Amino acid sequence: MTADDPERRHFSEAVGAGMYETDRAAQHLGIRLEEIRPGYARTAMTVAETMLNSQGSCHGGLIFTLADSAFGYACNAENKATVALACSISFTSAARPGERLTAVAEERLRNARTGTYDITVTGGDGRTVALFRGNSYQIKGETVPGLGAGPQAEET
Amino acid sequence: MTADDPERRHFSEAVGAGMYETDRAAQHLGIRLEEIRPGYARTAMTVAETMLNSQGSCHGGLIFTLADSAFGYACNAENKATVALACSISFTSAARPGERLTAVAEERLRNARTGTYDITVTGGDGRTVALFRGNSYQIKGETVPGLGAGPQAEET
Amino acid sequence: MTADDPERRHFSEAVGAGMYETDRAAQHLGIRLEEIRPGYARTAMTVAETMLNSQGSCHGGLIFTLADSAFGYACNAENKATVALACSISFTSAARPGERLTAVAEERLRNARTGTYDITVTGGDGRTVALFRGNSYQIKGETVPGLGAGPQAEET
Amino acid sequence: MTADDPERRHFSEAVGAGMYETDRAAQHLGIRLEEIRPGYARTAMTVAETMLNSQGSCHGGLIFTLADSAFGYACNAENKATVALACSISFTSAARPGERLTAVAEERLRNARTGTYDITVTGGDGRTVALFRGNSYQIKGETVPGLGAGPQAEET
Repeated sequence: MTADDPERRHFSEAVGAGMYETDRAAQHLGIRLEEIRPGYARTAMTVAETMLNSQGSCHGGLIFTLADSAFGYACNAENKATVALACSISFTSAARPGERLTAVAEERLRNARTGTYDITVTGGDGRTVALFRGNSYQIKGETVPGLGAGPQAEET
Repeated sequence: MTADDPERRHFSEAVGAGMYETDRAAQHLGIRLEEIRPGYARTAMTVAETMLNSQGSCHGGLIFTLADSAFGYACNAENKATVALACSISFTSAARPGERLTAVAEERLRNARTGTYDITVTGGDGRTVALFRGNSYQIKGETVPGLGAGPQAEET
Repeated sequence: MTADDPERRHFSEAVGAGMYETDRAAQHLGIRLEEIRPGYARTAMTVAETMLNSQGSCHGGLIFTLADSAFGYACNAENKATVALACSISFTSAARPGERLTAVAEERLRNARTGTYDITVTGGDGRTVALFRGNSYQIKGETVPGLGAGPQAEET
Repeated sequence: MTADDPERRHFSEAVGAGMYETDRAAQHLGIRLEEIRPGYARTAMTVAETMLNSQGSCHGGLIFTLADSAFGYACNAENKATVALACSISFTSAARPGERLTAVAEERLRNARTGTYDITVTGGDGRTVALFRGNSYQIKGETVPGLGAGPQAEET
């Protein structure tokens, strides 16, 4: 089974739904989980007035939060509890109030317990707003307790 | 005059107050600016229920936001408009609901237009929660328009 | 003219040749510049015995050096003197003695004076060895003095 | 026993000597290990003509290599095999040919298997040349096989 296998994708959607249910921060900021599959997640958020910094554009911390959310869903999409270890972000364009931002997270690599993910944040017009890279670390346990390990990828 | 000169510190406090007045994100998240002087800022925030991730601890994005705020105030403390270019963060300990987090930003270097700042986020018990490094880029103009350049550091 | 325009590509090749001529470090480490065009460069290096760390694999610093070289050529490919400001690297697989490593640098964004580049280092078998991201800063002057500004990209 | 305990420091020195013996890259570049103790290492290197980039200053990759070496010795100083996972570096001042560079690595945090280290590279005049941050990951086994675990820190 590949990452696009319907069964594995369906399982990842169940993990995402389970995570989102208790993800108070994402809910509170209006971050939505739009898509999730093994090694991939897409989140979106509209820049509210309460998210603006003193220059009148979206606070960099909230752009990071949107990207970090996509990262968190992508690296937990197979229900193996995984945390962010070190992240970096380059801010490339300001985001305006009312603008819809989208963050796409893609797994670049996953070894035994560590992984690296690239997250691109784009604005409503498709321009790049920020480039985020996350390094993850898999701890013990399930992300959503009780969901189990799900259908496994075939060994290659 | 050094960075500890009362006149320069007083000017930085005016810059900080002017920035904070329009910093909707900081206000909304309950981030407070506790201290500011040339090349230095300290911010603090209490972890609210609405800041928790699916694991029940403070969302990494909001820890980043607190640190990024301290960074933003520190690198703008002399009213030279300065933006974040690239930042990195290492998460070292989870933060609990109700915990008071403090971020201290210190300038490591500032060249003609670029600078590097270290920000340490600590929990209520003094343990390190995150280590953030910010690289800044000075653009044209004043951070708080109309405040002017303030008392200058002596050339050395 | 686009980045693939033969005239601009030819100019970038002249810049690359001019840089390489005085790039003692690249020469000494056996780093070769295999391709250069606006916003793009590819370098390669064979892991020598003198590049091994105490674990018998290629020293991470030399993998970084190969990637940083590709970054340096890519961001200077239009002869605008540009320096590295902040870089990050994730190490994903060890490189063996005798292995041929290739680093491909691609421009993600370039604003007035700052830019962001992604560099991927791959091993002889195509696996990813490291992921590098470089943030650049354009200073005054030409990279290769006397070569001029070259054919310009059309404004869009 | 603390990190300054003579017995633990002596053990770290044995680990450092064992690592250095097979560290071909450090030897070849003239990097010396000047001091090592638990969570700390200091390395030094003189900028040779063969280390210069096309701008006539030390190649950033070799500054990184010096810093990365200090990081590697510091995080392996207790003979627990540990590798670099993700590193970031800010370049703050050019280094000149003939200049003696020193890198000091200090442990900021070490959890069960992950750690964060700050490395500062200074020039012959004490100015900061680069700021490096390394995130480490402890794998299985001993850094120097056969040396054992050494005297342990007291649990606190």
